[in-house]
Parts: sequence; C-alpha cells; structure tokens
Amino acid sequence: MAELDQDRQSVQDSLKQVVKLLRKHQLVKSLVERQDMPRQDLVEGLVEKQNLTELQKKLDQLHPADVAYVLEALPLEERLAVWDLVKAERDGEILLEVSDAVRETLIAHMETKELVAATEQLDTDEIADLAPDLPREVMQDVFRSLSLEERDQLRSAMSYPEDTVGGLMDFDMITVRDDITVEVVLRYLRRLDEMPDHTDQLFVVDRTEHLRGLLSVSRLLVTDLDTPVTAIMDAATVKLVPHEKAQDAALAFERYDLVSAPVVDSNDKLIGRVTVNSVVDFIREETDSEKLSAGGLREEEDLFASVWSSVKNRWTWLAINLVTAFVASRVIGIFEGSIEKIVALAALMPIVAGIGGNSGNQTITMIVRALALGQISVANARKLFAKEIGVSFINGLIWGSVVGLFAYFIYHKWQLGLVMTGAMVLNLLLAAIMGVAVPLAMQKLGRDPAVGSSVMITAITDSGGFFIFLGLATLFLMP
Amino acid sequence: MAELDQDRQSVQDSLKQVVKLLRKHQLVKSLVERQDMPRQDLVEGLVEKQNLTELQKKLDQLHPADVAYVLEALPLEERLAVWDLVKAERDGEILLEVSDAVRETLIAHMETKELVAATEQLDTDEIADLAPDLPREVMQDVFRSLSLEERDQLRSAMSYPEDTVGGLMDFDMITVRDDITVEVVLRYLRRLDEMPDHTDQLFVVDRTEHLRGLLSVSRLLVTDLDTPVTAIMDAATVKLVPHEKAQDAALAFERYDLVSAPVVDSNDKLIGRVTVNSVVDFIREETDSEKLSAGGLREEEDLFASVWSSVKNRWTWLAINLVTAFVASRVIGIFEGSIEKIVALAALMPIVAGIGGNSGNQTITMIVRALALGQISVANARKLFAKEIGVSFINGLIWGSVVGLFAYFIYHKWQLGLVMTGAMVLNLLLAAIMGVAVPLAMQKLGRDPAVGSSVMITAITDSGGFFIFLGLATLFLMP
Repeated sequence: MAELDQDRQSVQDSLKQVVKLLRKHQLVKSLVERQDMPRQDLVEGLVEKQNLTELQKKLDQLHPADVAYVLEALPLEERLAVWDLVKAERDGEILLEVSDAVRETLIAHMETKELVAATEQLDTDEIADLAPDLPREVMQDVFRSLSLEERDQLRSAMSYPEDTVGGLMDFDMITVRDDITVEVVLRYLRRLDEMPDHTDQLFVVDRTEHLRGLLSVSRLLVTDLDTPVTAIMDAATVKLVPHEKAQDAALAFERYDLVSAPVVDSNDKLIGRVTVNSVVDFIREETDSEKLSAGGLREEEDLFASVWSSVKNRWTWLAINLVTAFVASRVIGIFEGSIEKIVALAALMPIVAGIGGNSGNQTITMIVRALALGQISVANARKLFAKEIGVSFINGLIWGSVVGLFAYFIYHKWQLGLVMTGAMVLNLLLAAIMGVAVPLAMQKLGRDPAVGSSVMITAITDSGGFFIFLGLATLFLMP
Repeated sequence: MAELDQDRQSVQDSLKQVVKLLRKHQLVKSLVERQDMPRQDLVEGLVEKQNLTELQKKLDQLHPADVAYVLEALPLEERLAVWDLVKAERDGEILLEVSDAVRETLIAHMETKELVAATEQLDTDEIADLAPDLPREVMQDVFRSLSLEERDQLRSAMSYPEDTVGGLMDFDMITVRDDITVEVVLRYLRRLDEMPDHTDQLFVVDRTEHLRGLLSVSRLLVTDLDTPVTAIMDAATVKLVPHEKAQDAALAFERYDLVSAPVVDSNDKLIGRVTVNSVVDFIREETDSEKLSAGGLREEEDLFASVWSSVKNRWTWLAINLVTAFVASRVIGIFEGSIEKIVALAALMPIVAGIGGNSGNQTITMIVRALALGQISVANARKLFAKEIGVSFINGLIWGSVVGLFAYFIYHKWQLGLVMTGAMVLNLLLAAIMGVAVPLAMQKLGRDPAVGSSVMITAITDSGGFFIFLGLATLFLMP
C-alpha cells in the first residue's frame, strides 16, 4: 500500500479523518448537553465549532465521488450529520454518485426547497437519473425552472428505462456542419469557454441535424487547416438508438474501444451521445446486481439498512428456496421405508445431491456465459450437449467411484457402494442435460438465463439426486 | 432488434455468414475428395475457390474484435479453417482480442515464423500481453527484431503481473515540456501523422521527464494561443505506479471518470499511461473470472474444449465439495441411531441445512461487497454483526415457524415441529455469525474474501445444520 499515490490513498484516510472529527464533535456536543454551566458551555461551543469547520473543510476538498463513498460507509445518524455539512451547491452531484439505497436516506432527510436547489447544478440527463427518487412536488418545481429546450430533453431522458441507451445518453455534444474546413472548426471551438467532458470527437451533421460522420479531435489537431471536414471525418460505424439495450451499447464500447458514440433516432437525426464513463458505471452496476441476485439479495442493500428492510430484501429468495427444499423433503419422504431399513442411506444421500448441484452449476455458468456472448447456435447446441454429457459421465465415474469406496469403507457393504456410484453417474448426467437445457429453454422463452437458472438446477439435482439414489437403493438393496 | 443499427447487427450475422460459407466450402471439398473424375474436380475446385474468396472478403471487412468473436464461437476444426483465411498482418491484433483458451488453440496451430510476423504489427505493451502464450523461441526472435528502446519497454511491461497497473500500461503517450505556449504545442502536434488512441490529455514534463501536470486536449482547443502551458495544465491528482493493483486503478477511473492516467515511478518520472479501454477490458475479465470461480470453474473454458480438459478445469471444485459433503455425511452418521427411531428426521434435515446455506450466502454477498469497497472498519463491524444477527433471528422465527408447521402438518407431531423451528433459528444465527466472520477473517489473513467464502459458509451451514437439527431431536425427542 506504500506505493499508492498520496492523493488516492487519502480516500480511505479521508473516511477515517471524517469519522474522527465527527466523533470528537459528538463527544463535545454530548458533554455540553449534559452540563449547563454557561461558562464552560461557551468554551466547549468554541471547540465544537472548530471541529466542525475542520470537518467541513475536509469535505469541501473531496471529489463528489469520494464524499459519496464516505456517506455510504457511515451509519445513518453520522451519515446525515456529514450530509448537513456538505455545501448545498454540491448536493446534486453527490446525490448522483451515491448508491440508490443511500440516496433514499439522504433525500428523505431533505426539504423540497433544498432538493430543487440541488438539481439546479445538474444537466437534464442527470436530473432524469435522480427523478425516480425525487418527490413529485420537487419534480414539478424543477420542471418549471427549466427552459423549453431543457424540458424537452428532460422529458425525453425520463422516457427511457435505465437499462437502455436512452438511459445512458447525455446531450453535451458538440456538432459541426459538414460544409466547413478544419480552420473554421478550430475557430468555432476556441470561442467556447470549455468543451464537455469526454469530447473525443465532434459530430458532423447536415442542415437538418442528420448525422453525417464523426470528426476525431485528435485528427483535428494533426490536419492542415484548410482541409474540409468531410475529407477527414469517419463514417459512424457505431450508431446507437435510444431504445436499444444498454448492454448492447456496452459491448460495442468494449469491443471497439470507444470513448463516445452518437445516439440517433430512426431518421438518423442526432439526438444525443453516450460516453464511456456512463458505460463503465453501467457495467459496474450490472455486474454488481448480478452478484447480488446470484447471492440471493433482491437489490443492493444499504450496509446499515434497518433490520426490517434487510429482512424484506432477502425474503423472496428464501421463500423460493423453502419451496424447493419442501419438494426435496417430500421426495425423501417417499422412501422413508427404505431409510428405516438401511439408515446409512440418510447419511449418504446429501453427497449425491450436493455434487450433482455443483456439477450442474458448472455447466450452467459456462452456458449462460456463452449465451450472453451470443456464441450458441442451434448447430453447435448439439455439440455442447455431447460434450457436457461426456464430461459429466467421466466425472460421474471418477467421483462416483470415490464416493462408492467411501460408502464401502464406512458401511462395509459393497452393494451400497455400487448403488452410490450408479446414483452419482446418473445424477451428474441429469445435471449436465438440465445444465444445458434450462438456460437454452429460458433464452427461447425470452427470459434472462442468468437469473434463476442456478436455483432451478440446484432444485432439480437435489430432488433428482435424492430420488435416483433412494430409488436405486430401494430397487437393489431391499430384501 | 430491428432498431439495432445495421453495422453492429451484422456481427451476429457475420458469424452466420461465415459459418454458411464455411459449410459450403467443406461440402464441396468432401465431394471432391470422394470422387476423382478430373473434369468434375476442376469445376468443383472453381466453386470452392469462389466460396473461399467470398469468405476471405467477409473476414477482411470485420473489425479484429469481431473476427475474434467469430473464432470463439466456432468448433476447433472450423475455427482453424477460418484462422487460415485471415490475412497474416491481422494475426497479431486478433490474437490480442480472443480469449486465453482460444488463443492457445490458435497459437498451437501456427509456426514460429508466422508468430514472429504476427507480433511485428504490435506495440511492445501488446507483445507483453501475448508473451505468456508464445513459445520461447518465438519470444527470442521477437526480442532480436526490436530496437533498444523497445526492448526496454518490453522487458518492463513483461515484468509486471497482469493484475497490476504495469500490466495495463502502454507507452503511447504524448509529452510536452512545461516551458512552452499553447501555440507551440499545437504546432508540434500538427507535425505528427496521427495521435495515439485515447489521447484526451498530454503529459507535461520537465527536462528530466518528471511529471509536472496534465494538459487536456479540450482545454488546448479553447485557449488563446499565447497562453503558457503551465497556466492551463491541471495537477495530476491521479498518478498510478506500476506495482499498484489494477483493481485500484479501475476504481479511480470509475470514480473520477478518467479516459487516461499517467503512470510514474517512485521518483515521479513518467513511464507510461493507462487508458480507459484497458480498464474496461480488465473490469470485464475480472467480473468474468469471478463469475466463473463462483460457478466452480477454475478458468474460462473454451466452449469447444476437449472433454478431458473440461474435466480437469472442473476438478478442484468438485473435489473440495466432495470433502465437505463427506464431513456432512459423517455428521449425519453420528445420529444414525436417532434417525432409525424417527425416520422423518432424514426427510426434514436437508431443509434446515439448505435454508441456512442460502441465508449465509446472502450475508456473505453483502459483506464481501462492502469489503471490496473498503466500507467496513473495526468500529462498524460490531454494528454489522448486530444487524445480521437481528435479521437472521427474525428470518429464523418466521421461516422456522413455516417449516415447523410443515413438519407438524406432515408428521402430526408438535414436538418435531418445535425442534424444527428451534433448529432453523439456531442455524440461521450460525449462518449470520459465520457470514460476517468468515470474510472478515479472510481479509485479516490477507486472502481475497470473494474467493472461497461461499464454499466455506455452505460447508458450515450444511454440517452445522445437520448437527443442530439432529442434536436437538436426539435431546428432546428420544424416549
């Protein structure tokens, strides 16, 4: 960690400093509250003020993203204390940076007037990002404060779901006409106070705002001044449309190493742009939410959420698993007679079910990944089935033999060992077939195979494993 | 999908076209091989040639990343047939784009001479990325073909592990001196043929190559020509060092919306830069490998890998799970006497174990995420414990009552229902405590809590769940 540069090292340090100053402040405050000697009050009031000023100064120096980080790491009470110290004009940009769960706690704590003021520093596409969390009356006030053009932009930005190109889009692009020279472009730019962030290219349009091409800023800098724009502009190979899935745009950014890309309507008219920073945020949020749902959380949880809201967040998943567990339990119930006769079956059955679940999840992970990349066609699906069946057959024989020997070693019945091996082979085959079939079927039905495939395969290999093992045992081991 | 723009729509289409042309070609070829009438041979030879030319043309039009995509989606034989048709001068850039597993299959198929030629089109930092997969003699030839400066760069790039800043770094930066004006900078740039990709800023250095500041290209375009560089350059708030974790650099790019960032040595001397496209690739690879290891695959698997290499890839995980399953099985074995008396225990025990595992994984997902973001300190760890214990206690009571009723409903013994409820509460508490403790302990021991936490918690709640449930049953239900 010694090699980390100082400026960024200080983000973690900042958190520690903020907490320290805050604790000092609260300690003094509680002292003041407990005593009421006016003299001492005055002194301690001064100390308190000094702490607060120092804390405020510290916060002012931090990047909005870093303030957001500090807020997310603090329990509710301290979080709100820090939030009160943040300069009002920075509220908007910080609200954009915090996680949804934390944003809700901050907004709940603010008055209408403060919220309207917070949005005043933001671009329309940023207001649209906050809109779902803002109270209705705030949005009405915000709307009234905008120009006509901005209202249009805000309406347009709010009309697209978060996970579409429209949700990622901003309106900060520089357009130039196609009938001018490099010199004119440069003169035009020099009249601007500053260029929007992430301007790696200008958008070349005709009289009617239709996109003609892209003019790279780098190219602009290395070209002779009298060159016409049309001579050095590139064709727009990647043009996004607002209703397109954000996921597809992210793939294009990744694949073609883009910094920005134009968004056009169905008539090829330029309406906005997407920049790589929104794409990076999108990728991070998406993988985050995938991880959460894989772990059984419905949504991102504020680390210090109330117990009750956490319970609700985890509800669905536990309920689903309870149902599958009940089914598995009833499958075992069918064979209670056999278990009564050979109690060893009870101890061995979780092994068959468990390894089946693991093997099935391995297959599913690979298939879901290949589906997401669009690498699976009808033609190669058959090959995949064949391969997965081969893999699971070999794994079944190997690990089946191991568990068979284990069973023989513990219970000294070779028949039990053979049944165990047979059950492992069959359950792994079941896992392989369902591991390919379940995601393919979900894809066919238009559902996201990444969500729920794993629960389903585990349910199948659990109940299936119990059924296969106890069924074989009942067939071959019962007198 | 109708709204996707044509150029990108065609990536999926390209794959279909390539496969179609390839199949036609192979069909004709096999016809030719089966017959040996010289006349027909000639005709079909012509048809074959026409197919190949068309296929080759198609491939030439594709972006290297798209060719990589096509190669990854094809089974080995067809993949190699397409690879042979790719122009030799494009080999290098395509090898950079394909996945590790597919790259191995392509390189295994190439001769030393071809491989050396392939690297000739690449920058030194790109050669370093390929280096681990290239045969030794190829690397020796490559080395000899480089200039002294390039050799230094290659050696330096190869000396850093993939997951460090040094592994992401390239050497394509434009530096300017700190004692000149904007006009001089612009004149200097105009003498270049082109600027490196992702040049959003120039690096301002002093005589000894020490980094003085950053000069944004946008700023350059809107500033008066006689302004000195020092007046408009920014301080480098983010400076990376080569040994820093790539993960930390990615966080900085994400947090501060960077397009490029300087890499300096311990004396603040500029040695390279990192650009957002390498960061995006890194993020994608990292989340990919997390998903794979969460699914129990050791590494990314070629979709059409041989059965045997797939078996090896999945080996470790199954072995680990087998061990934990054996342990759980032996825990059950202890209580075989009780199960023999009340066989219902066998049917009910997987419910307790299963729900415990799910609940524990929910806790772990949240804690691992918070740890990755650095949001957990000693001070708030206690709060987290308290919260998780609260959540699991409530969940235990609620779901415990549900399963208790279930048990009573099926087996008509209220004592069994009570034991079930009690076991659920206790196992969920165990899951909560270990769900917080396991990742925190791994972090303390300097291990990545994202790897293996989930296996461990499942092992604990399985064996623990069986032990708690069967133990309570033995205590309270046995006559």
